[in-house]
Amino acid sequence: MKDNKQSEMLPDIRVAVDAMGGDNAPGITVKGACQASLESPLHIILVGDEGRIAFELKKHKHNVSQIEIAHTPEQITMHDNPKQALYEKPDASVAVAARLVGEHKADALVSAGNTGAVILSSAKHIKRIVGVRKTALAAIYPTQNVQKRGDLFSIILDVGANLHNSHHDLVHFAYMGATYASKIKNIESPTVGLLNVGREEYKGGETLSKTHQLLSTLPNINFIGNVEGNELMLGLADVLVTEGLTGNIAIKTAEGVASAAKNLGKMASKQNPIYAIGFMFLYGGYRRLKSIVDYEQYGGAPVFGFERMVIKCHGRSSHRSIKNAIKLAAKSVRDDMTGIISSSIAGYEKDYAMSDMDIKSDFY
Amino acid sequence: MKDNKQSEMLPDIRVAVDAMGGDNAPGITVKGACQASLESPLHIILVGDEGRIAFELKKHKHNVSQIEIAHTPEQITMHDNPKQALYEKPDASVAVAARLVGEHKADALVSAGNTGAVILSSAKHIKRIVGVRKTALAAIYPTQNVQKRGDLFSIILDVGANLHNSHHDLVHFAYMGATYASKIKNIESPTVGLLNVGREEYKGGETLSKTHQLLSTLPNINFIGNVEGNELMLGLADVLVTEGLTGNIAIKTAEGVASAAKNLGKMASKQNPIYAIGFMFLYGGYRRLKSIVDYEQYGGAPVFGFERMVIKCHGRSSHRSIKNAIKLAAKSVRDDMTGIISSSIAGYEKDYAMSDMDIKSDFY
Repeated sequence: MKDNKQSEMLPDIRVAVDAMGGDNAPGITVKGACQASLESPLHIILVGDEGRIAFELKKHKHNVSQIEIAHTPEQITMHDNPKQALYEKPDASVAVAARLVGEHKADALVSAGNTGAVILSSAKHIKRIVGVRKTALAAIYPTQNVQKRGDLFSIILDVGANLHNSHHDLVHFAYMGATYASKIKNIESPTVGLLNVGREEYKGGETLSKTHQLLSTLPNINFIGNVEGNELMLGLADVLVTEGLTGNIAIKTAEGVASAAKNLGKMASKQNPIYAIGFMFLYGGYRRLKSIVDYEQYGGAPVFGFERMVIKCHGRSSHRSIKNAIKLAAKSVRDDMTGIISSSIAGYEKDYAMSDMDIKSDFY
Repeated sequence: MKDNKQSEMLPDIRVAVDAMGGDNAPGITVKGACQASLESPLHIILVGDEGRIAFELKKHKHNVSQIEIAHTPEQITMHDNPKQALYEKPDASVAVAARLVGEHKADALVSAGNTGAVILSSAKHIKRIVGVRKTALAAIYPTQNVQKRGDLFSIILDVGANLHNSHHDLVHFAYMGATYASKIKNIESPTVGLLNVGREEYKGGETLSKTHQLLSTLPNINFIGNVEGNELMLGLADVLVTEGLTGNIAIKTAEGVASAAKNLGKMASKQNPIYAIGFMFLYGGYRRLKSIVDYEQYGGAPVFGFERMVIKCHGRSSHRSIKNAIKLAAKSVRDDMTGIISSSIAGYEKDYAMSDMDIKSDFY
């Protein structure tokens, strides 16, 4: 989703924003909402402490008719145990925001708060898509895009809604991710890969080899096969499917190594002034590259599997991320993202009939 | 293990080297063996095609009395399906080398060949340590060593001997890794971490939370708790314990991101001459850092769980890696590495009595 100031067709779409969620809430969340109200004709419900939200609203220009406040004094911090915190504070801002969506008083949820609390609140208040047994948290990450298709970003899911998944869950993830990638990257048939320990179809144990087999046969999935960890950054697949445990470890490892690589340049600079000069020269290059791989343009990543759109932003989100996440949520509603996902899963379930099972997050 | 020319106490230690294993075999493997023969009084059995090995031996100075050849015409390539290839070529160099170790005609095995073939050959010919149900492939990787303890390297295991492990297996891995780290890093009580999706002890599902609980209570394990993917490179733990599936994906993802980061500097250089100048200045710094994080000094990483030492080198190993792996194998024999591991596991098994189960690699 690119920033753009032109008015889009987003009439009557209502986005519930967890105003108290995130490292810099409510300052950043309210500022993001204000900007979104100026750029798009959508409606925003800021959920949280009315006094603090009103105080922040006064600081920023916004379209008054498009923003309302739903007051609740309770909130959950980033460090709370989500299950326990939600039990103790059933009226925490994230829970109230999810409830508004569940009661159809809002069409989509945006939160930069505690990930577990977002997932558990959504699971409690928002209906799952029929047939979906496990939800999936997605992450958007920059790649080398070695094949020079589309933009530099890929989507990986699940990275932490659950720990383990069945092969049917993983096929659902493929449909969810592909539908999303198709809409936001504006590509017709996004490539789908399966994160695995080797290229061969028999690799990775029963769940992964069964998933490989299924994905290979489904006509409406553009499956490119298994993708190994060292290929994650190549961007061969627009959508990378994985169980929550492996996805979480893979995406966090990638973050950690990227951050270590950045520190290496700084370390070298400190050791010797001549390296510092080099780093200085190169810094512009890195900055330029950074602007190309600017994932703030995507705002956040969805939690898939619900009948309504749920967007989880990073805890350290800027107001620009929040603004883009709100616009992303509204556009997803306009494009009937969850409806399309729902249809594709219904089609799959019809052909591969299965009994429904209980859903809970085993992650938190 | 640091290079050093001084003669060590390695009398009568015999290392079987899979001379045909690796991308540049037998050229690189023979050259490495030649150098090892000059630096240490160990005995080397080069297993593979006699004619090609003899041809390579002529090229390099070596200690003739310390090197012998065990001829076999068969070999397994890096791209073979290991299970099938071993079935079709029971006398492949890696299998013959493992058999020599199993029959006590050699004390340790070194191979830079097909990882699956090394593990499966070892499993077939070399006895497992009593009580060990799953073997573990280790990887040595450079870290930021943020706590400035010891060297820059950590050990992660399992990264691909198996896919899934029980909590008892993971405790065994902790003993294996800690014994090894203690000897090669020369530290008394290596720190042990558990790769997981969060810091809290209840995280990661049954196997991981049970492992956390066990490791916390064992007096001879210096357990620092769960380590998340983004903390992998910090080097908080000398030994990082994980199931094979997650370990494989984590270590390969780390490799892939590190390689992408390197390419980023080159990409920037191509875009603008001023960045190229910067990269040039910085290059010396990177090279210097590279020499600090020189993992060739370790030669290779063990496959743990056997009564004899098995060292797997990278397929792209240099002759220096092979040389160091051979010396590492001999020193491990001298230090009775597998004996110490065996005792620690016997002690654990006695206190946490369990029935023995069948062992197979579920990875290949």
